[in-house]
Amino acid sequence: MSAEVEEMLKRFQNVKNIIGIVVADYDGIPIKTTLENVQSVHLACHMHLLTEKARQVILDLDATNEFVSMRMRTSYFEIILMPSDNYFIVVLQNPSD
Amino acid sequence: MSAEVEEMLKRFQNVKNIIGIVVADYDGIPIKTTLENVQSVHLACHMHLLTEKARQVILDLDATNEFVSMRMRTSYFEIILMPSDNYFIVVLQNPSD
Repeated sequence: MSAEVEEMLKRFQNVKNIIGIVVADYDGIPIKTTLENVQSVHLACHMHLLTEKARQVILDLDATNEFVSMRMRTSYFEIILMPSDNYFIVVLQNPSD
Repeated sequence: MSAEVEEMLKRFQNVKNIIGIVVADYDGIPIKTTLENVQSVHLACHMHLLTEKARQVILDLDATNEFVSMRMRTSYFEIILMPSDNYFIVVLQNPSD
C-alpha cells in the first residue's frame, strides 16, 4: 500500500499552486491528506462517485477503452483526479494563467 | 441558439488533433456533430450524465462554486467537455505528446 501511495504523491511533488492533496481508497476513505479532515472526507467521497461514473461512461462508450484521469475546472480551483490500482488521488490546484 | 453553438465551435477551430466534436442540448440530443450519428447520440447522452454528476459534486462540495469544464484522459483519446447556457460541447482529441 505505502509504496503505491508514495508513488502517487511523488507525481505531484513538483506541481505548482497546489492547494491540497487527498489519497483515498475505493470505499472513499481518505488514507493520506493535506486538507482538514471534514473536507478530505467530503472530497474523497464525492470524487469517488465521480470516478465510478466516469469509468462506467468510458466503458459504456467502448468496452475496450479505459478511464485514465480527469481534470475539472471550477470557478475557484482545478481538481485533478487520478486513479491507481487500490487508491485514487485528488489534487486541488489553483489554475495556472 | 445558433450564435451560442457557433461561439462554442469557434473555440476549438484551431485546436490540433481533434477526432470529433459534438454539440448537444441538456436533454442529451446532439445539435451539431462531426461524428457518425450513433456515436454522437451515445457520446451526448453519456457526457450529459457525467456533466450533471460533476455539477452536482462541485455544488455539494461548495454551494458557491461552479463546474466550468472537464478534460478526461482515456486509453485511446482525451475527452473535453465544456458546458454553456443551453448546450454543451464534447470534443474528442488525440492526446498531445
